[in-house]
Amino acid sequence: MRVVGTFGAARERRGGITALVPTMGYLHEGHLSLVRIARERADTVMASLFVNPLQFDDPSDLDRYPRDAARDAALLEEAGCDVLFAPQVEEMYPSEPLTRVTLPALAATMEGAHRPGHFDGVATVVAKLFAGLQPDLAVFGRKDAQQFVVVSRMAADLSMPVEVIGGPTLREADGLALSSRNVFLSDAERRAALGISRGLMAAADAVEAGERSAAALEGLVLEEMSRQALDVEYAELADAADTSRLTVLDRPGFLAVAARSGSTRLIDNVWLRPDGSADRGARLGAPSVLYGGGG
Amino acid sequence: MRVVGTFGAARERRGGITALVPTMGYLHEGHLSLVRIARERADTVMASLFVNPLQFDDPSDLDRYPRDAARDAALLEEAGCDVLFAPQVEEMYPSEPLTRVTLPALAATMEGAHRPGHFDGVATVVAKLFAGLQPDLAVFGRKDAQQFVVVSRMAADLSMPVEVIGGPTLREADGLALSSRNVFLSDAERRAALGISRGLMAAADAVEAGERSAAALEGLVLEEMSRQALDVEYAELADAADTSRLTVLDRPGFLAVAARSGSTRLIDNVWLRPDGSADRGARLGAPSVLYGGGG
Repeated sequence: MRVVGTFGAARERRGGITALVPTMGYLHEGHLSLVRIARERADTVMASLFVNPLQFDDPSDLDRYPRDAARDAALLEEAGCDVLFAPQVEEMYPSEPLTRVTLPALAATMEGAHRPGHFDGVATVVAKLFAGLQPDLAVFGRKDAQQFVVVSRMAADLSMPVEVIGGPTLREADGLALSSRNVFLSDAERRAALGISRGLMAAADAVEAGERSAAALEGLVLEEMSRQALDVEYAELADAADTSRLTVLDRPGFLAVAARSGSTRLIDNVWLRPDGSADRGARLGAPSVLYGGGG
Repeated sequence: MRVVGTFGAARERRGGITALVPTMGYLHEGHLSLVRIARERADTVMASLFVNPLQFDDPSDLDRYPRDAARDAALLEEAGCDVLFAPQVEEMYPSEPLTRVTLPALAATMEGAHRPGHFDGVATVVAKLFAGLQPDLAVFGRKDAQQFVVVSRMAADLSMPVEVIGGPTLREADGLALSSRNVFLSDAERRAALGISRGLMAAADAVEAGERSAAALEGLVLEEMSRQALDVEYAELADAADTSRLTVLDRPGFLAVAARSGSTRLIDNVWLRPDGSADRGARLGAPSVLYGGGG
C-alpha cells in the first residue's frame, strides 16, 4: 500500500476502475467491510483518512475525536487497500475555504437539525475528494443513512462520474452498531445503548409483519429506547431518495434514530421497503476485536 | 468538430491537455478569443454551450437571452474548437437540482448584490462542468470580473485539478466592451453606453498617473457615466483575490461597473495594479462583424 499526502500524488496512483473509501480514521470492522466491497468492484482501491474540521459543529467533539493513524494504515493494507490518501490540513485547506457545497432540503432534518452545518461540511469535503481524486466509484456506510443520501445526491447533482455505493451497517453479536465512538461507552452505557438496536429490530419485525405507519414504527423504537437511560434526539422514518419525512412506508425509506448514552452520541438505522423487506445490517459472529468491541 | 450532448460522450473526447471554454452561446469575438487562447495551450479544445437557468434571477431575462446554436457551432469550429458539449436541460438537470455550490463572501457585492442567487447558479453549473468534463484548464473572460474570481476560487477550494485562465475583455474600436446583450441596444442607447468604457479608461489613465484612491477612481467613472442617459448600478474598486471592496489600490484589483442603457444591463471593468499598470482589455481594429458590432 502506498501512502500519499497530496491530491496530485493520489491521482497518479489511479489505475483501471478506481474506488474510494473516505474515512475519518479510527477504523473498525465496518470501515474494513467497505474496503472489501471496494476490493471486489475495483482494480485500484483508495482510502482517505482525514478528520474534517468543517463537519464538526462542536470544536470539543473535533478535539476528542479518536485518532490512531498507524493502526489505521496497517488495517487498511490488510483489508486490501492499494493507496491511502492521508492529507495534512494544509493540503485540504491551503487557504480559508470560502466555497460550500450545500443541500438545504436534505440537511434540514434529523442529523442536520441537531448538528448545524454538519452536512454542508460533509458535502463540501466529499465534493473535494471526488473532484480532486476522480474515483470511478465510492463506498459509504449506510449506517450514516442521511449522509449516504446527501453524498449520493450531491454527486448526481454535480454531474460527477462517481458511482456511490452503500455498504451495510455492521453490528456486534448483541446488535450494537459498530462506531468509532463506542470506545467511549462505559459498560453500563453500552448496555443502555442496546435499546437503540433492539428498538430498530422491533420496527423491522413489524414491517415484515405488515406495519406501514410511520407513527407506529417510530413508536416501537421510542418505546424500546425509553426503557433505558438514553437521551433520545429523534426517531424518524425518512424517504431513502431525499430524506423527507414519511408518514407511511409507501416507498423505500430508512428509520433513523439518534440518542446519547452518557455523553456519547450514537446513531443507527434500518432500511425498510414497502414490500415488507428490511435491511438490518450484518451481525458479526464473534465480538469485534477492534475499537468499540466487547459485547 | 464533434458535437456531443452528454457528459459521458464529452469525457471520451478528451485527449492530452484538454481545455474547456464554457459559454451561454450567441458568441462574439470575445468568446472566440477565449477559444484561441485555449487552442494555444491545449491539445483538445472543448467548448460548452448551455443557457443555465440556475443563474438567472429574472425569468424574463432568461427568456429573452439571445440564442443561435447553429451559428455558434460554425464559429466555434472556425476558431479551432474540437468538441462542442451542447447538452439539453435534461442532461444538465435530470432531477431537481438540490445541491448548490455557494461562495457567500465573494457573492455579496456588485453583481451578487444586484442579482440575488446569480453566483450560486454560476458556481454550481461551473462545478458541474468541471466535475463532469474533467478538463485540465478552463478559459473565462475577465470582462465578467467577479465571476472570474468566483470560479477561480471555487475550483481551488474544491481541489479541482483545473487551471482557470482569464482572457482579456475585447472592445469595439470605440471602446464598447463586446457583449451578447449589445444586440439589444438602439443607436442612442449604444452612444450612451460609451460613457461606461470612457469612464473606465479615465480611471486607468489616472492610475497610470499615480492615483490610488478608490473614491477618486470610482468618482472618475461615475462622472463620465453621469454625462449619459445611463442608470448606474455600481462602480466599485474590488480586490482581485476575493472581490472585497478596496479603499486604496494597494494590491491587484479591478474597477467594475454595471449600468443600464435603456433596458439593457451592461457590465465592464478594468484590472488595475498598485504598480500603476492597467489592463484595459484589447480593442478590435475594425468593427466586430458579429453580434453587438457596429461602432
